[in-house]
Amino acid sequence: MASREIHQDQGVREAMLRLGAGRGGASWIQLLEPTGPDTPVGKFLARRGPGIHHIGYRVTNITTALDAIGARGVRLLDQRPRHGSMGASIAFLHPADVGGVLTELVQPPEP
Amino acid sequence: MASREIHQDQGVREAMLRLGAGRGGASWIQLLEPTGPDTPVGKFLARRGPGIHHIGYRVTNITTALDAIGARGVRLLDQRPRHGSMGASIAFLHPADVGGVLTELVQPPEP
Repeated sequence: MASREIHQDQGVREAMLRLGAGRGGASWIQLLEPTGPDTPVGKFLARRGPGIHHIGYRVTNITTALDAIGARGVRLLDQRPRHGSMGASIAFLHPADVGGVLTELVQPPEP
Repeated sequence: MASREIHQDQGVREAMLRLGAGRGGASWIQLLEPTGPDTPVGKFLARRGPGIHHIGYRVTNITTALDAIGARGVRLLDQRPRHGSMGASIAFLHPADVGGVLTELVQPPEP
C-alpha cells in the first residue's frame, strides 16, 4: 500500500497499490470506495457493479496534453487540471469519445 | 504498434500498443476486435458496449501464480496456462472472484 487518501470533493476514499516497484515507469492500482451513494463512484457501482472504473495515463505536461487532445475533438470533462492523488495534477476525458473508457491524464508532482 | 495477431481460437483480432517504451516494466494496451458476434469479445460488446475488457498482470512464473491464487479460493478460468499474444503464456481468473474485473496472468516468453 503506497497511499491512502480521502477526497471529499470527489466523494471517494482510495488506496493506491504500486506495481513494479523499484523500476522506471511503475503502474498503480487505485482502489476506490464511494463516501456515499450520491457520488460519481457510488452511482457507477449502483449502475454497473464492481469492476474497472477508469484508466489513467501518465503525461509529462498535462496542459499540453489536454490542448492537443481537445483539439482533436475529444470532449474534456476537465478543461483545466485539478488536484489528484499523491500530489498529481489530473484531468478526465469524456469516455464516449475514447472508446467507452473513462480516461484520466496524470502528471506526477515534481520530484 | 508493437504487434498484430489474429487468434481464431479466441475469436479476436488484436493490436498491441506499447506504453513506456524503452523503460523497464512497460505496460501495454491491447485493442481487441471480435471475429464474429458469437465469440467472447463479440458477446461482451453486445452486452456492455465498447470499453475496458480485461486487465493483465505480468508474473514471473504463471504456474506458481495459478497454484497460489487457486489455493485462495479464486476460480480459475484456465486451470493451466495457454498460448497468448506475442509468445506469452496466459491464464484468466474468474471476474466474480476478483472484484468484477476479468483478470489475466501473463508470463512473457524467455528473451
